[in-house]
Amino acid sequence: MTLPVLTTTEITRVATPELVLTAVRHALIAHAHGRTSVPPPVHLEFPDDGDCHVKAGWVTGTPDFTVKIATGFYRNPAAGLPTNHGLVCVVSASTGRIRAILDDQGLLTAWRTAAAGALVTHAMSRPDAATLSVFGTGEQARLQVAWLARLRPIDTVLVHGRNQDRTRSLCEQFHALGHHARPAPADEAAAADMVITTTPATAPVLPAGRVRQGAHVTGIGTDMPHKNELPPALFARAALIATDDHQQCLDHGDFGHAVRAGAATDTSDTPAGLLLEKPVERPDGAITVADLTGVGALDAALASAVLGELAPQAP
Amino acid sequence: MTLPVLTTTEITRVATPELVLTAVRHALIAHAHGRTSVPPPVHLEFPDDGDCHVKAGWVTGTPDFTVKIATGFYRNPAAGLPTNHGLVCVVSASTGRIRAILDDQGLLTAWRTAAAGALVTHAMSRPDAATLSVFGTGEQARLQVAWLARLRPIDTVLVHGRNQDRTRSLCEQFHALGHHARPAPADEAAAADMVITTTPATAPVLPAGRVRQGAHVTGIGTDMPHKNELPPALFARAALIATDDHQQCLDHGDFGHAVRAGAATDTSDTPAGLLLEKPVERPDGAITVADLTGVGALDAALASAVLGELAPQAP
Repeated sequence: MTLPVLTTTEITRVATPELVLTAVRHALIAHAHGRTSVPPPVHLEFPDDGDCHVKAGWVTGTPDFTVKIATGFYRNPAAGLPTNHGLVCVVSASTGRIRAILDDQGLLTAWRTAAAGALVTHAMSRPDAATLSVFGTGEQARLQVAWLARLRPIDTVLVHGRNQDRTRSLCEQFHALGHHARPAPADEAAAADMVITTTPATAPVLPAGRVRQGAHVTGIGTDMPHKNELPPALFARAALIATDDHQQCLDHGDFGHAVRAGAATDTSDTPAGLLLEKPVERPDGAITVADLTGVGALDAALASAVLGELAPQAP
Repeated sequence: MTLPVLTTTEITRVATPELVLTAVRHALIAHAHGRTSVPPPVHLEFPDDGDCHVKAGWVTGTPDFTVKIATGFYRNPAAGLPTNHGLVCVVSASTGRIRAILDDQGLLTAWRTAAAGALVTHAMSRPDAATLSVFGTGEQARLQVAWLARLRPIDTVLVHGRNQDRTRSLCEQFHALGHHARPAPADEAAAADMVITTTPATAPVLPAGRVRQGAHVTGIGTDMPHKNELPPALFARAALIATDDHQQCLDHGDFGHAVRAGAATDTSDTPAGLLLEKPVERPDGAITVADLTGVGALDAALASAVLGELAPQAP
């Protein structure tokens, strides 16, 4: 039997927002309860600014696990090539047979990251939160807003970016989606009801003192030890801290920076998945923070759900 | 562009013994000189006797690296399914683009293991060694003999196996290849000029005291810490010990068992690849031993060579 390779066209056709949100929500909850298997990733480095990460993940008891290969070669754009390549290999957890290759060009990773951010931000924000700001102007800045807008109405979007052209362009895209949107300096963006940071920053981008009582902040950009978006002072002010993976966030998330700075204790976080099971009890005026570093089990859940739609008959 | 998936038919067509032996020889030599990149593998375990290993490897400076997925689900045969599944993903080391999937059903791993065993056994054995014995009756027992026979004449093959039917059947296959072959008890098999052990044994299968002065022994079956084919006493008698990867053989090879038993020092081994560069100087009457645990860089070298034949034009 020929190994099926599914393209972005096929994947896009079946991966509806409902499917993605449901798969990601279930995986975050399973991970919070320890019902996932996520071994440490493989990492290869290459000369000329290239690297490769290989991540495996499984939601315990589900039919499939995944092995995801993701490469980043940062001089590619100069040669007219995309920086990132990758694929997701879906494997039966009962026979080890490789069911399919999802040649997704990184699409599923982008969607699960956006869905996780949207689900956690929605769950932790006040029901009447109306303004949203994003720090960063890349793909995730756009996706985080678009996916959160599927879960709740958003009145105004403030965009804080270093590059003015990209910031304006992103605001125009949000206009087209029906949002009020405008560029904002960091101090103003930090004062929104909901804040999502999506940058590759190596020093905090968010002025902690400007975050209002009653606001929620989600950071999704800190996925390596040298990165840092959210300042320790923000964690010191937080009444509730959520992490998508306790150990990973301690190792290389903003939560870890805060713990090492003495602004939070290393047991002060709550698994983000637990906050998706029932309405979050947040005191009036409390600041809440979520540190999301990306969990391999989400890849497995999403890829398996996509394949279930495309090849429901396969064993 | 659609991701190419190459089948065993295509792979078998181009992977001539010459191509395999050349690629494996170069990779072993490169690895001996530290010109490879082989990160620790990912390992996932499943209920019902299943596991998955993901190995990455690169021969420094070559165009491609590989990520190999290999699963073993040991209850599959009861359901009429093969135990092992897997594939090799070939990735450009200069752009990160995934060049192809080799849907090889584990064929390339079997061949590179056989080629490595044959190359090292041939290099370390006396030029006039004429009798060969194999311990074990599985696929590698057959392949190790077949591939060594490509490198030197073999007069007689002795087969030592636990299962008499399988032992006889393997002897018949060797007959068909033109060798004298017969079943032999362990004591007699251990006294051959060349000995290759290919078992999944967890306690030594080879009676060290029966190995003759001037003989060579290669062990290829010990690839996990709980496995052990070659007794420490054999290493104590050896004038030359070769390992395909020093650290890996210390961690989970027969060499490690010998070192922990005090039968060899942890610096007494020579990189196997160094012995392929020029004729090995072996004193008359010396016993030599090779412990091969399998090196990920061989996968990369072989997959890259195969793809080079199939898709020489691809960037």
